Amino acid sequence: MVIDCSDLERAADFWTAALGYVRDGAADGSYQSLVPADGDGLELLLQSVPEGKDGKNRLHLDLRTRDLAREVERVRTLGAQLLTPTPVVEDGWTWHILTDPDGNEFCVVAPAPDYWASREN
Amino acid sequence: MVIDCSDLERAADFWTAALGYVRDGAADGSYQSLVPADGDGLELLLQSVPEGKDGKNRLHLDLRTRDLAREVERVRTLGAQLLTPTPVVEDGWTWHILTDPDGNEFCVVAPAPDYWASREN
Repeated sequence: MVIDCSDLERAADFWTAALGYVRDGAADGSYQSLVPADGDGLELLLQSVPEGKDGKNRLHLDLRTRDLAREVERVRTLGAQLLTPTPVVEDGWTWHILTDPDGNEFCVVAPAPDYWASREN
Repeated sequence: MVIDCSDLERAADFWTAALGYVRDGAADGSYQSLVPADGDGLELLLQSVPEGKDGKNRLHLDLRTRDLAREVERVRTLGAQLLTPTPVVEDGWTWHILTDPDGNEFCVVAPAPDYWASREN
């Protein structure tokens, strides 16, 4: 998955901390690869682009958590901006919309209780 | 990861076939969850939205392949549109830019040969 940004270092600092990822080597030109700290999972490729953000992204990441308030607070301390003053609630799911340091939207989502019943973590 | 679309069924048909995913149950209101057919990996949540696409997406998926031409042909038969008449080449990597049936960009990428040397598949 590729995320556009304007500052590779800033975006890498944010997303490694937000996701528990690490840099996969040094930045290479316009790119910085991030991989899960435990080595298994989706690679995230940060791509430095000249243009700023314009309009809502049509792809975004959901960070799922059991503790919405704590996770929102955690990513805000990393530099995320909170867009929703109160949580969105739908079918037992609760979430906040935030943006990364480049203005790219992502959500912190507390799924409905039955979501966790079918999963180990 | 969440992808905006206008037609859940059409988007689900495309992305399940493109990625080797399956529907995780039926569509629920505005949402259709897709998961890897082998059960392990990133969940993809299709979200039906009223607005059309406007401007370039700042997040996109890269589908990595050893055989660029064959993979491009495969996703075109699934409904992808090819945006690049000739492949983009950079540092030994070669790719095409395409769009899904909603106009969301994604890339089919043939990494440089040394990429595969450090990976099993």
